[in-house]
Amino acid sequence: MNPRKQELLQKTIQHIDIKAHNVVPMVDAMATMAFQARNLSRGAHIFNMMQEDKECAVFLTLAGSLISAGLKNVVVDLVKNNMVDAIVSTGANIVDQDFFEALGFKHYIGTQYGIDDTELRDLMIDRIYDTFIDEEDLRICDDTIGQICNSLEPRPYSSREFIREMGRFLDENDKYAEFRENSIVWQCYKKGVPIFVPAFSDCSAGFGLVHHQWHNPTKHVSIDSAKDFLEITKVKLHNPESGLFMIGGGVPKNFVQDIVVACDILEKEAPMHKYAVQITVADERDGALSGSTLKEACSWGKVDVVYEQMVWAEATIAMPLIAGYAYHKGSQAGRPERRFNDVLDKVNVPA
Amino acid sequence: MNPRKQELLQKTIQHIDIKAHNVVPMVDAMATMAFQARNLSRGAHIFNMMQEDKECAVFLTLAGSLISAGLKNVVVDLVKNNMVDAIVSTGANIVDQDFFEALGFKHYIGTQYGIDDTELRDLMIDRIYDTFIDEEDLRICDDTIGQICNSLEPRPYSSREFIREMGRFLDENDKYAEFRENSIVWQCYKKGVPIFVPAFSDCSAGFGLVHHQWHNPTKHVSIDSAKDFLEITKVKLHNPESGLFMIGGGVPKNFVQDIVVACDILEKEAPMHKYAVQITVADERDGALSGSTLKEACSWGKVDVVYEQMVWAEATIAMPLIAGYAYHKGSQAGRPERRFNDVLDKVNVPA
Amino acid sequence: MNPRKQELLQKTIQHIDIKAHNVVPMVDAMATMAFQARNLSRGAHIFNMMQEDKECAVFLTLAGSLISAGLKNVVVDLVKNNMVDAIVSTGANIVDQDFFEALGFKHYIGTQYGIDDTELRDLMIDRIYDTFIDEEDLRICDDTIGQICNSLEPRPYSSREFIREMGRFLDENDKYAEFRENSIVWQCYKKGVPIFVPAFSDCSAGFGLVHHQWHNPTKHVSIDSAKDFLEITKVKLHNPESGLFMIGGGVPKNFVQDIVVACDILEKEAPMHKYAVQITVADERDGALSGSTLKEACSWGKVDVVYEQMVWAEATIAMPLIAGYAYHKGSQAGRPERRFNDVLDKVNVPA
Amino acid sequence: MNPRKQELLQKTIQHIDIKAHNVVPMVDAMATMAFQARNLSRGAHIFNMMQEDKECAVFLTLAGSLISAGLKNVVVDLVKNNMVDAIVSTGANIVDQDFFEALGFKHYIGTQYGIDDTELRDLMIDRIYDTFIDEEDLRICDDTIGQICNSLEPRPYSSREFIREMGRFLDENDKYAEFRENSIVWQCYKKGVPIFVPAFSDCSAGFGLVHHQWHNPTKHVSIDSAKDFLEITKVKLHNPESGLFMIGGGVPKNFVQDIVVACDILEKEAPMHKYAVQITVADERDGALSGSTLKEACSWGKVDVVYEQMVWAEATIAMPLIAGYAYHKGSQAGRPERRFNDVLDKVNVPA
Repeated sequence: MNPRKQELLQKTIQHIDIKAHNVVPMVDAMATMAFQARNLSRGAHIFNMMQEDKECAVFLTLAGSLISAGLKNVVVDLVKNNMVDAIVSTGANIVDQDFFEALGFKHYIGTQYGIDDTELRDLMIDRIYDTFIDEEDLRICDDTIGQICNSLEPRPYSSREFIREMGRFLDENDKYAEFRENSIVWQCYKKGVPIFVPAFSDCSAGFGLVHHQWHNPTKHVSIDSAKDFLEITKVKLHNPESGLFMIGGGVPKNFVQDIVVACDILEKEAPMHKYAVQITVADERDGALSGSTLKEACSWGKVDVVYEQMVWAEATIAMPLIAGYAYHKGSQAGRPERRFNDVLDKVNVPA
Repeated sequence: MNPRKQELLQKTIQHIDIKAHNVVPMVDAMATMAFQARNLSRGAHIFNMMQEDKECAVFLTLAGSLISAGLKNVVVDLVKNNMVDAIVSTGANIVDQDFFEALGFKHYIGTQYGIDDTELRDLMIDRIYDTFIDEEDLRICDDTIGQICNSLEPRPYSSREFIREMGRFLDENDKYAEFRENSIVWQCYKKGVPIFVPAFSDCSAGFGLVHHQWHNPTKHVSIDSAKDFLEITKVKLHNPESGLFMIGGGVPKNFVQDIVVACDILEKEAPMHKYAVQITVADERDGALSGSTLKEACSWGKVDVVYEQMVWAEATIAMPLIAGYAYHKGSQAGRPERRFNDVLDKVNVPA
Repeated sequence: MNPRKQELLQKTIQHIDIKAHNVVPMVDAMATMAFQARNLSRGAHIFNMMQEDKECAVFLTLAGSLISAGLKNVVVDLVKNNMVDAIVSTGANIVDQDFFEALGFKHYIGTQYGIDDTELRDLMIDRIYDTFIDEEDLRICDDTIGQICNSLEPRPYSSREFIREMGRFLDENDKYAEFRENSIVWQCYKKGVPIFVPAFSDCSAGFGLVHHQWHNPTKHVSIDSAKDFLEITKVKLHNPESGLFMIGGGVPKNFVQDIVVACDILEKEAPMHKYAVQITVADERDGALSGSTLKEACSWGKVDVVYEQMVWAEATIAMPLIAGYAYHKGSQAGRPERRFNDVLDKVNVPA
Repeated sequence: MNPRKQELLQKTIQHIDIKAHNVVPMVDAMATMAFQARNLSRGAHIFNMMQEDKECAVFLTLAGSLISAGLKNVVVDLVKNNMVDAIVSTGANIVDQDFFEALGFKHYIGTQYGIDDTELRDLMIDRIYDTFIDEEDLRICDDTIGQICNSLEPRPYSSREFIREMGRFLDENDKYAEFRENSIVWQCYKKGVPIFVPAFSDCSAGFGLVHHQWHNPTKHVSIDSAKDFLEITKVKLHNPESGLFMIGGGVPKNFVQDIVVACDILEKEAPMHKYAVQITVADERDGALSGSTLKEACSWGKVDVVYEQMVWAEATIAMPLIAGYAYHKGSQAGRPERRFNDVLDKVNVPA
């Protein structure tokens, strides 16, 4: 490797382990403070209520560069402990970052200062704020997606179906055995937890898919985002009581909220999301969805107002505190493994 | 209508008309100020350079609730005057808001204060910050999408293909004649301007599609987001020189930047986006894509650093100033009607 | 001058001229949009109401680096046209920036990118985001304040009294004749408009005062911030009806709101501020004063809720639109020159 | 008390105790994550370096409603353990909130939703975002300041001198014995730690001072903000090596940074601040001081660039983590009690 590139790609991102830090007393103490400490504490309490409520299916949404930032193991621990039952994410978190690390690649501690982005481009180093990625590694990730496409029967897939195939790929290739253990994609594959990426081509997966469709113009894999929406709606119909733990906003937030309305469109009864917590730094004052309050979502009939909390904080700080709080409270004990992937396999059979 | 509902839905949103306000002297004066006035002015100059550069294809991206906020006619005027050649958007702007108004519905001036969202829910009034929507109107919009689905040959469509069908629907139904004139969907249909919505099921369209697929479980329309990505990449290959005018971030920003890399994946030569302007209130400090600097995008090989400008401002204020500046400079004169829809019709034929 | 320094200090900031841009039609059009366009328009309408209400004294507050950013002439035009009757500001705007330019110095167009702040330090160039200042010029400004201190009778002064002496200094030194015309300090001196800087030592003035007191340890000028508060309270008692036009938050916002309570403490009747408009980018979610809503200020009995508006925008963009709107509406016609400095000269005589 | 008022003022804010939560392992783990987790961790490490460096005087600055939000005991513990040697603050934190609680009053857990601020006004309940205050209690606080004024020799005082008298008042009145133990004002009085409030009249103290000066028009206490600046400069000259721990921005941030320049103005050698950490949610993009980077401060010759860190987070979450990290590392062991109040008593004698 180019020596300058080697110099810049030295120290790797390490994922925080919520199991190692019992934050319960501190988060409880924050409940009687003010501002975002109090909001964070209430958010943690509501996420814990979702765990205590054994009827409640928990949807985790991921937007922003969370996995590259050291939050991968937080998600993996939530999945392993049956604390989340379905995931809705942007593509980058699942493909470019989680699947990428499952292939054995790493994210590097970089800097946003004193660095010339044109030099990085010449070195094929991609920058996410203060984090570096080796673009040559990422191209291998793109290619791997392309290979998976080529190996599949040509037909429309939901992103969930495709991501499950990515999990199967990791599972069936022992060369990834040491990396996949802490992979969201692989853990969800094992646990039957569906992962939806409603804008699936908007990430490394897109590059693989474009390559596949370009070279297979008539018969090819396609990604049906409508099928995603139908499938996640079926999950809601199957398990009506639900709670949302949303990291960031964007498409995943909107998508998971909309399923309540989708049930109504299908003339099926389904309650609003009973619990909802969002961690975000987005502002409500530009009217965009990411920062819109959960009270506003109530006007749309999507989220109930009793147990909802916006937590205005950056996810790398707030998510370990909220997830770790619920983990150490231990309320996940007795929660069933819901295996919604298996459920969808059954209901997807045309009636 | 319920009298309370009628009381709340009185005054309608009116779209600003950039043609009526010559902001050139003011925006020029901002060039020698500081902070965001200077940035906005430089952004306007760069958007004007895109107009002057007759080789340059201009991609407009839309994220946030822009159309409901009164910016519809800004987009329509850019399309009518050949100032943008392709659009990438979130679904809400195109379906729930633009197509919705093309059906004859309106957005209402509401308030974020002193209103109880549970009362709004009971009245079937949806709230976007300070704007109200009649949910009953929106359900008709959902249904209309469902009807369009039912009328199409069952196969995978790119969102662009589907949205063109929405334009055709407006064009062929004279009852919409008085509303469609100022519709983005219809104007783009007439002008051959492609509209891509990479997360197409994440909006009112999703409800129509879910209804369609639920009732047509084996043979149905699907939305192939990979095809979207391939098509927009083909646009870039057809017209290599390009500029970006991005309103908000999110999926549309990422998607349009990624096409440079997609060309490379296909082993085709294509330059980075030569010009790029983004209006956003997102912050770079959480590492998310929406607020990431355009310099950072250069490290990824997506955007060149010479003519790029982040404008930190809310879109309802900044977009009319930047679009209006370029419009009144008149540099769009002589820009060709690129009709990328027609181009895609040709290249989409398998080689 | 060092050639590198000369290279960096080439182009000067030019102040925007609201008189040259009739923004009335555009700001009126923003009233029926959403989000911050609508808020800005309503803010402009309320500022115009203050002009129409001939009983209303208008307080302008300034926080942030506004004068260096090209907003000096906006303030000067408001003063010249009797559109503001008193100013409360941070020290930097009044001393380091306005008085500094009145001495003949300039602010320079700089950049926040690709510049090493340690190099700037070595060159004695100070940076404010994207603006450069010659520290050697600033030292002359500091010294000038020191000279004014030395020339005054040793006693406690309100910042208002001291700033009036700065105006007198400019008025009596013809070498500043060409620069002072567009100086806030000098225009306010001529028009009898009081300027309060509640944290007066927290700026270039502080350096002059420290030098003065260090060298005059027993008998010296002091700055009595309590006297400031008493004086501005007397202004409110003299002219009970009042409106606030606040650019940024900080000490000036708090100070001017508090005078309603101060009247009450003195057992005098005085109404809440009847009108209030604040332009700010501060967030309410950290509980700090700068971003706190004007509705919150009502709970404190400081601001009435009928005609108040927060405008979430950066000042260099929003202030010219709001000030320019009121200017071009012409409602300032018939507003009296209130000359509160003269009023204070009388009431300051002990009863 | 009015029953509705009683209903709203039920639960009191409890201050978090950093001694009870060993956050060292978690904050260390954040060092290899990204974004603000990494920045927070680095900020904590730098604050710990200030503790390890026994030559370094540590200045704590406070802006925002921190004390009412539950951070009082964090500051008290830093003072008790010789971890900060001087404080610069806004007035509200020191007078309306800390001194107020030392008089036996409390802050109440309130809400920002579903509450009508005009009702609060009628009930004499003041709101800070989600926190309530009994205005009747606050009036007693104002009066107490007035009494202290009346008891002092009429002359100009620095805010530091006045606040020390507030500490003496608490010390000499045994009725406050149970409350003062956790008072910043009283602890600093006992430990000789100076507290500077550069805009001292901009808070509850202002009301007391206005009342005092109104009723004592010719001979009265005045607050000399220039003396504040001179005194804090003398602290820097006495202990040249220094570090800054800044919570929020505003006047305190600017004031403490400026003392390096003030030393230079007095033609004394003094190094830049060697260490600097700021917790803030302010944005740099409006060019205001609060959000300006510490690198920018280097161009002004105020802060060195080697050990500086901006932490973009809300203080109620981040301050306990950073302060608690340093506390549990134990590096404060061996730090001297610097008693700068005693030093100033000596140097304030005219040379």
